Amino acid sequence: MAADNQQERLEPTWVVGFADGESCFHVSINRQPRMATGWQVLPEFRVVQSDKDEAILNRLQQFFNAGSVVVNHDTRKELRIRKLDDLKRVVAFFQEHPLQTKKRNDFQIFSEILKLIESKEHLTQEGLTKIARLCWKMNRKVKPKYLESSETIRQKSQSSSD
Amino acid sequence: MAADNQQERLEPTWVVGFADGESCFHVSINRQPRMATGWQVLPEFRVVQSDKDEAILNRLQQFFNAGSVVVNHDTRKELRIRKLDDLKRVVAFFQEHPLQTKKRNDFQIFSEILKLIESKEHLTQEGLTKIARLCWKMNRKVKPKYLESSETIRQKSQSSSD
Repeated sequence: MAADNQQERLEPTWVVGFADGESCFHVSINRQPRMATGWQVLPEFRVVQSDKDEAILNRLQQFFNAGSVVVNHDTRKELRIRKLDDLKRVVAFFQEHPLQTKKRNDFQIFSEILKLIESKEHLTQEGLTKIARLCWKMNRKVKPKYLESSETIRQKSQSSSD
Repeated sequence: MAADNQQERLEPTWVVGFADGESCFHVSINRQPRMATGWQVLPEFRVVQSDKDEAILNRLQQFFNAGSVVVNHDTRKELRIRKLDDLKRVVAFFQEHPLQTKKRNDFQIFSEILKLIESKEHLTQEGLTKIARLCWKMNRKVKPKYLESSETIRQKSQSSSD
Protein backbone atom coordinates (compact mmCIF):
# COMPACT_ATOMS: atom_id res chain seq x y z
CA MET A 1 0.00 0.00 0.00
CA ALA A 2 1.90 3.06 -1.20
CA ALA A 3 1.23 6.35 0.53
CA ASP A 4 1.66 8.56 -2.49
CA ASN A 5 -0.19 6.77 -5.24
CA GLN A 6 -3.91 7.42 -4.80
CA GLN A 7 -4.70 5.30 -7.84
CA GLU A 8 -2.99 2.13 -6.70
CA ARG A 9 -5.31 -0.86 -6.41
CA LEU A 10 -6.71 -1.19 -2.89
CA GLU A 11 -5.78 -4.25 -0.86
CA PRO A 12 -8.66 -6.70 -0.27
CA THR A 13 -8.15 -6.65 3.51
CA TRP A 14 -8.26 -2.82 3.52
CA VAL A 15 -11.53 -2.99 1.56
CA VAL A 16 -13.00 -5.32 4.20
CA GLY A 17 -11.97 -2.97 7.02
CA PHE A 18 -13.37 0.07 5.24
CA ALA A 19 -16.57 -1.79 4.34
CA ASP A 20 -16.96 -2.94 7.95
CA GLY A 21 -17.07 0.72 8.91
CA GLU A 22 -18.62 2.52 5.98
CA SER A 23 -20.62 0.23 3.74
CA CYS A 24 -24.26 -0.75 3.74
CA PHE A 25 -25.98 -3.85 2.41
CA HIS A 26 -29.49 -2.73 1.70
CA VAL A 27 -32.61 -4.23 0.17
CA SER A 28 -35.70 -2.17 -0.52
CA ILE A 29 -39.07 -3.43 -1.65
CA ASN A 30 -40.88 -0.74 -3.61
CA ARG A 31 -44.35 -0.54 -5.10
CA GLN A 32 -44.09 -1.13 -8.83
CA PRO A 33 -47.41 -1.60 -10.63
CA ARG A 34 -45.69 -2.98 -13.73
CA MET A 35 -44.48 -6.03 -11.78
CA ALA A 36 -46.87 -9.02 -11.57
CA THR A 37 -46.69 -8.91 -7.75
CA GLY A 38 -47.03 -5.12 -7.68
CA TRP A 39 -43.66 -4.86 -5.91
CA GLN A 40 -40.03 -4.63 -6.97
CA VAL A 41 -37.07 -5.90 -4.93
CA LEU A 42 -34.00 -3.65 -5.12
CA PRO A 43 -30.82 -4.97 -3.50
CA GLU A 44 -27.81 -2.65 -3.35
CA PHE A 45 -24.37 -2.29 -1.86
CA ARG A 46 -23.53 1.30 -0.89
CA VAL A 47 -20.58 3.23 0.46
CA VAL A 48 -21.25 6.86 1.36
CA GLN A 49 -18.54 9.50 1.87
CA SER A 50 -18.34 13.28 1.97
CA ASP A 51 -17.46 14.59 -1.49
CA LYS A 52 -13.93 15.48 -0.37
CA ASP A 53 -13.38 11.72 -0.21
CA GLU A 54 -14.83 10.96 -3.63
CA ALA A 55 -11.41 9.62 -4.72
CA ILE A 56 -11.75 6.63 -2.40
CA LEU A 57 -15.20 5.83 -3.86
CA ASN A 58 -13.68 5.84 -7.34
CA ARG A 59 -10.95 3.50 -6.17
CA LEU A 60 -13.56 1.16 -4.65
CA GLN A 61 -15.51 1.32 -7.89
CA GLN A 62 -12.34 0.27 -9.73
CA PHE A 63 -11.64 -2.42 -7.14
CA PHE A 64 -15.04 -4.08 -7.62
CA ASN A 65 -15.17 -3.02 -11.27
CA ALA A 66 -18.83 -2.32 -10.64
CA GLY A 67 -21.38 0.34 -9.79
CA SER A 68 -21.21 4.08 -10.12
CA VAL A 69 -20.35 7.05 -7.94
CA VAL A 70 -23.37 9.35 -7.64
CA VAL A 71 -24.65 12.18 -5.45
CA ASN A 72 -26.10 10.85 -2.20
CA HIS A 73 -27.24 13.99 -0.38
CA ASP A 74 -25.91 17.54 -0.13
CA THR A 75 -22.12 17.24 -0.08
CA ARG A 76 -22.15 13.46 0.16
CA LYS A 77 -21.36 11.00 -2.61
CA GLU A 78 -22.01 7.27 -2.78
CA LEU A 79 -20.69 4.28 -4.61
CA ARG A 80 -23.81 2.32 -5.51
CA ILE A 81 -23.73 -1.22 -6.89
CA ARG A 82 -27.10 -2.54 -8.05
CA LYS A 83 -26.64 -4.94 -10.97
CA LEU A 84 -27.32 -8.52 -9.91
CA ASP A 85 -24.17 -9.92 -11.53
CA ASP A 86 -22.03 -7.23 -9.88
CA LEU A 87 -23.66 -7.87 -6.50
CA LYS A 88 -22.94 -11.57 -6.88
CA ARG A 89 -19.25 -10.73 -7.26
CA VAL A 90 -19.40 -8.41 -4.23
CA VAL A 91 -20.97 -11.22 -2.21
CA ALA A 92 -18.32 -13.69 -3.42
CA PHE A 93 -15.63 -11.22 -2.34
CA PHE A 94 -17.00 -10.88 1.21
CA GLN A 95 -17.47 -14.63 1.46
CA GLU A 96 -13.77 -15.05 0.73
CA HIS A 97 -12.77 -12.09 2.94
CA PRO A 98 -15.15 -12.08 5.92
CA LEU A 99 -16.36 -8.88 7.57
CA GLN A 100 -15.29 -8.56 11.21
CA THR A 101 -18.11 -6.48 12.71
CA LYS A 102 -21.81 -7.14 13.25
CA LYS A 103 -22.24 -6.00 9.64
CA ARG A 104 -21.51 -9.62 8.80
CA ASN A 105 -25.08 -10.45 9.93
CA ASP A 106 -26.52 -7.96 7.43
CA PHE A 107 -24.21 -9.36 4.78
CA GLN A 108 -25.39 -12.92 5.41
CA ILE A 109 -29.05 -11.93 5.14
CA PHE A 110 -28.22 -9.90 2.03
CA SER A 111 -26.64 -12.93 0.36
CA GLU A 112 -29.65 -15.10 1.27
CA ILE A 113 -31.94 -12.54 -0.40
CA LEU A 114 -29.70 -12.48 -3.47
CA LYS A 115 -30.05 -16.27 -3.77
CA LEU A 116 -33.85 -15.97 -3.58
CA ILE A 117 -33.78 -13.33 -6.33
CA GLU A 118 -31.53 -15.51 -8.46
CA SER A 119 -34.01 -18.36 -8.22
CA LYS A 120 -36.80 -15.90 -9.18
CA GLU A 121 -38.62 -16.25 -5.86
CA HIS A 122 -39.07 -12.48 -5.68
CA LEU A 123 -41.59 -12.79 -8.51
CA THR A 124 -44.06 -14.68 -6.33
CA GLN A 125 -46.07 -13.40 -3.37
CA GLU A 126 -44.66 -16.15 -1.15
CA GLY A 127 -41.05 -15.36 -2.12
CA LEU A 128 -41.65 -11.65 -1.59
CA THR A 129 -42.94 -12.30 1.92
CA LYS A 130 -39.86 -14.40 2.64
CA ILE A 131 -37.59 -11.60 1.35
CA ALA A 132 -39.49 -8.92 3.28
CA ARG A 133 -39.13 -10.88 6.53
CA LEU A 134 -35.37 -11.18 5.90
CA CYS A 135 -35.15 -7.40 5.18
CA TRP A 136 -36.82 -6.75 8.49
CA LYS A 137 -33.91 -8.41 10.29
CA MET A 138 -31.37 -6.17 8.55
CA ASN A 139 -30.05 -2.69 9.21
CA ARG A 140 -32.39 -0.49 11.18
CA LYS A 141 -35.01 -3.21 11.52
CA VAL A 142 -37.73 -1.07 10.01
CA LYS A 143 -40.74 -3.14 9.03
CA PRO A 144 -40.90 -3.17 5.21
CA LYS A 145 -43.92 -1.39 3.72
CA TYR A 146 -44.59 -4.54 1.75
CA LEU A 147 -45.21 -6.50 4.96
CA GLU A 148 -47.45 -3.79 6.39
CA SER A 149 -49.33 -3.79 3.15
CA SER A 150 -49.62 -7.56 2.61
CA GLU A 151 -50.66 -8.11 6.23
CA THR A 152 -53.27 -5.38 5.95
CA ILE A 153 -54.59 -7.08 2.82
CA ARG A 154 -54.63 -10.46 4.55
CA GLN A 155 -56.45 -9.09 7.59
CA LYS A 156 -58.98 -7.34 5.36
CA SER A 157 -59.63 -10.45 3.30
CA GLN A 158 -59.96 -12.51 6.50
CA SER A 159 -62.42 -10.10 8.08
CA SER A 160 -64.47 -9.86 4.87
CA SER A 161 -64.70 -13.67 4.71
CA ASP A 162 -65.87 -13.88 8.36
CA MET B 1 -9.05 -13.68 8.93
CA ALA B 2 -11.38 -16.37 10.27
CA ALA B 3 -15.10 -15.78 10.09
CA ASP B 4 -15.99 -17.50 13.31
CA ASN B 5 -13.37 -16.39 15.78
CA GLN B 6 -14.24 -12.89 16.99
CA GLN B 7 -11.18 -12.82 19.22
CA GLU B 8 -8.58 -13.50 16.54
CA ARG B 9 -6.00 -10.74 16.16
CA LEU B 10 -7.06 -8.21 13.54
CA GLU B 11 -4.95 -7.88 10.41
CA PRO B 12 -3.00 -4.59 10.14
CA THR B 13 -4.45 -3.81 6.71
CA TRP B 14 -8.00 -4.36 8.02
CA VAL B 15 -7.22 -1.96 10.89
CA VAL B 16 -6.09 0.69 8.37
CA GLY B 17 -9.29 0.27 6.34
CA PHE B 18 -11.49 0.45 9.42
CA ALA B 19 -9.55 3.45 10.79
CA ASP B 20 -9.86 5.21 7.41
CA GLY B 21 -13.59 5.00 7.85
CA GLU B 22 -14.24 5.14 11.57
CA SER B 23 -11.34 6.64 13.49
CA CYS B 24 -10.56 10.19 14.52
CA PHE B 25 -7.24 11.84 15.28
CA HIS B 26 -8.14 14.68 17.57
CA VAL B 27 -6.27 17.31 19.55
CA SER B 28 -8.04 19.60 21.99
CA ILE B 29 -6.55 22.57 23.82
CA ASN B 30 -8.37 23.14 27.08
CA ARG B 31 -8.11 25.82 29.75
CA GLN B 32 -6.16 24.43 32.67
CA PRO B 33 -5.15 26.99 35.30
CA ARG B 34 -2.67 24.57 36.86
CA MET B 35 -0.51 24.66 33.69
CA ALA B 36 2.08 27.45 33.40
CA THR B 37 0.55 28.54 30.06
CA GLY B 38 -3.00 28.23 31.42
CA TRP B 39 -3.78 25.66 28.72
CA GLN B 40 -3.48 21.88 28.35
CA VAL B 41 -2.98 20.04 25.05
CA LEU B 42 -4.89 16.74 24.82
CA PRO B 43 -4.16 14.56 21.80
CA GLU B 44 -6.25 11.44 21.33
CA PHE B 45 -7.04 8.67 18.88
CA ARG B 46 -10.69 7.60 18.94
CA VAL B 47 -12.87 5.00 17.31
CA VAL B 48 -16.61 5.30 18.01
CA GLN B 49 -19.15 2.51 17.44
CA SER B 50 -22.68 1.73 18.54
CA ASP B 51 -22.57 -0.48 21.64
CA LYS B 52 -23.69 -3.51 19.65
CA ASP B 53 -20.24 -3.35 18.05
CA GLU B 54 -18.31 -3.02 21.29
CA ALA B 55 -16.55 -6.33 20.50
CA ILE B 56 -14.66 -4.73 17.62
CA LEU B 57 -13.48 -1.88 19.89
CA ASN B 58 -12.14 -4.46 22.35
CA ARG B 59 -10.31 -6.20 19.53
CA LEU B 60 -8.80 -2.88 18.40
CA GLN B 61 -7.78 -2.18 21.99
CA GLN B 62 -6.03 -5.56 22.03
CA PHE B 63 -4.48 -4.88 18.64
CA PHE B 64 -2.88 -1.61 19.76
CA ASN B 65 -2.51 -2.90 23.32
CA ALA B 66 -3.51 0.60 24.39
CA GLY B 67 -6.38 2.79 25.49
CA SER B 68 -9.71 1.88 26.97
CA VAL B 69 -13.25 1.31 25.76
CA VAL B 70 -15.60 3.81 27.41
CA VAL B 71 -19.08 5.25 26.96
CA ASN B 72 -19.12 7.92 24.24
CA HIS B 73 -22.74 9.04 24.18
CA ASP B 74 -26.07 7.29 24.68
CA THR B 75 -25.70 3.87 23.09
CA ARG B 76 -22.28 4.59 21.61
CA LYS B 77 -18.95 3.35 22.88
CA GLU B 78 -15.46 4.53 22.02
CA LEU B 79 -11.94 3.20 22.10
CA ARG B 80 -9.91 6.14 23.38
CA ILE B 81 -6.11 6.20 23.34
CA ARG B 82 -4.56 9.18 25.16
CA LYS B 83 -1.22 8.18 26.70
CA LEU B 84 1.66 9.76 24.84
CA ASP B 85 3.68 6.54 24.58
CA ASP B 86 0.63 4.66 23.27
CA LEU B 87 -0.11 7.41 20.74
CA LYS B 88 3.50 7.25 19.55
CA ARG B 89 2.99 3.56 18.79
CA VAL B 90 -0.30 4.31 17.01
CA VAL B 91 1.50 6.92 14.89
CA ALA B 92 4.33 4.50 14.11
CA PHE B 93 1.72 1.93 13.02
CA PHE B 94 0.01 4.32 10.57
CA GLN B 95 3.39 5.47 9.27
CA GLU B 96 4.18 1.88 8.39
CA HIS B 97 0.63 1.19 7.10
CA PRO B 98 -0.58 4.41 5.40
CA LEU B 99 -4.19 5.52 5.52
CA GLN B 100 -5.81 5.70 2.09
CA THR B 101 -8.40 8.46 2.54
CA LYS B 102 -8.12 12.19 3.24
CA LYS B 103 -7.84 11.19 6.89
CA ARG B 104 -4.15 10.84 6.12
CA ASN B 105 -3.93 14.67 6.22
CA ASP B 106 -5.35 14.73 9.75
CA PHE B 107 -2.98 11.95 10.70
CA GLN B 108 0.04 13.87 9.40
CA ILE B 109 -0.91 16.99 11.33
CA PHE B 110 -1.57 14.84 14.40
CA SER B 111 1.92 13.33 14.22
CA GLU B 112 3.48 16.81 13.84
CA ILE B 113 1.64 17.92 16.98
CA LEU B 114 2.82 14.81 18.82
CA LYS B 115 6.42 15.68 17.95
CA LEU B 116 5.94 19.23 19.29
CA ILE B 117 4.54 17.79 22.52
CA GLU B 118 7.46 15.38 22.80
CA SER B 119 9.91 18.25 22.53
CA LYS B 120 7.90 20.09 25.24
CA GLU B 121 6.92 22.95 22.94
CA HIS B 122 3.34 22.77 24.23
CA LEU B 123 4.60 24.22 27.50
CA THR B 124 5.43 27.57 25.88
CA GLN B 125 3.06 30.20 24.52
CA GLU B 126 4.81 30.10 21.13
CA GLY B 127 4.58 26.31 20.90
CA LEU B 128 0.92 26.40 21.94
CA THR B 129 0.13 28.86 19.16
CA LYS B 130 1.92 26.60 16.67
CA ILE B 131 -0.10 23.59 17.89
CA ALA B 132 -3.38 25.54 17.84
CA ARG B 133 -2.77 26.62 14.24
CA LEU B 134 -2.12 22.98 13.29
CA CYS B 135 -5.33 21.89 15.11
CA TRP B 136 -7.26 24.42 13.08
CA LYS B 137 -6.28 22.61 9.88
CA MET B 138 -7.61 19.29 11.20
CA ASN B 139 -11.04 17.67 11.31
CA ARG B 140 -13.89 20.10 11.17
CA LYS B 141 -11.61 23.14 10.95
CA VAL B 142 -13.13 24.78 14.01
CA LYS B 143 -10.95 27.61 15.29
CA PRO B 144 -9.49 26.49 18.65
CA LYS B 145 -10.67 28.47 21.66
CA TYR B 146 -7.02 29.00 22.54
CA LEU B 147 -6.47 30.97 19.32
CA GLU B 148 -9.60 33.04 19.82
CA SER B 149 -8.41 33.73 23.32
CA SER B 150 -4.75 34.48 22.57
CA GLU B 151 -5.63 36.69 19.60
CA THR B 152 -8.17 38.57 21.67
CA ILE B 153 -5.47 39.12 24.27
CA ARG B 154 -2.99 40.24 21.59
CA GLN B 155 -5.48 42.63 20.02
CA LYS B 156 -6.37 44.05 23.40
CA SER B 157 -2.74 44.56 24.37
CA GLN B 158 -2.05 46.15 20.96
CA SER B 159 -4.99 48.55 21.22
CA SER B 160 -4.08 49.47 24.81
CA SER B 161 -0.51 50.28 23.71
CA ASP B 162 -1.74 52.52 20.83
